[in-house]
Amino acid sequence: MIVLGLDPGLGTTGWGVIRVEGSRLTHVANGQIRTDAKAPLASRLVTLDSALAAVIAEHRPDGAAVEEVFVNANAQSTLKLGQARGVVLLCAARSGAVVGEYAARLVKKAIVGTGAADKKQVQAMLGILLPGVKLAGPDAADALAVAICHAHHARR
Amino acid sequence: MIVLGLDPGLGTTGWGVIRVEGSRLTHVANGQIRTDAKAPLASRLVTLDSALAAVIAEHRPDGAAVEEVFVNANAQSTLKLGQARGVVLLCAARSGAVVGEYAARLVKKAIVGTGAADKKQVQAMLGILLPGVKLAGPDAADALAVAICHAHHARR
Repeated sequence: MIVLGLDPGLGTTGWGVIRVEGSRLTHVANGQIRTDAKAPLASRLVTLDSALAAVIAEHRPDGAAVEEVFVNANAQSTLKLGQARGVVLLCAARSGAVVGEYAARLVKKAIVGTGAADKKQVQAMLGILLPGVKLAGPDAADALAVAICHAHHARR
Repeated sequence: MIVLGLDPGLGTTGWGVIRVEGSRLTHVANGQIRTDAKAPLASRLVTLDSALAAVIAEHRPDGAAVEEVFVNANAQSTLKLGQARGVVLLCAARSGAVVGEYAARLVKKAIVGTGAADKKQVQAMLGILLPGVKLAGPDAADALAVAICHAHHARR
């Protein structure tokens, strides 16, 4: 099974692809999609959609996963995030992948065994769970983490 | 010129198509796209995208327009709206239409001459500006209003 993890954002969307064979996880690829903050919103969403569609066409995931959103106190940020997240969810679902949403706490628990871990701990564990992984950045790391969480839940 | 106005929402998205020839506006079609509140979010976004893509394929708009968002105090509502809005903007921009965003105040001003009009006034004026129009609902009315606003601005 191929799983695509996604960490949506209008400025930067992280993505990570893993292969799941029984209890064995292998890193396939990860990256970050950036959009130009000076471009009109609709163009930025087209950039995000096109780049993500290319990732999906290359890796053909069976499952895709995103974190449930921690709703921001800043409504304008929530709107921006929502717009990017809508495009990312659409793009994943359109490909036929089963899309899962997981609470941040569940994602951390899947990686480090506790829902209270910090980002550094998660990134350190990614290096152990996915030997040889080179992280494209913090958003790509979050994307790989949610992909692993999806793999754990799909296995049950 | 064919203009598609859009009033995005996760539950209901209004759309309205007008034809613009010089200063003459003609109603072409309007409607509302509904998604099933019980379905998973990603499926709802796929439903919205598919239905809107069909509208765009039928009417081939040169321009598309949405209202700028009045950010809601309820962050969860803002996130939902954002996700639908992201898909709607993507869908319009992907078709090659020029996408415009207009403040609610500008839209009202384009329809009734003042930014302080209420919904009933706007709907009454739509009947005068677009003779023979039958409104599919309040969201379709809002979509036609923003289409007219776009037509006014494109003309300048």
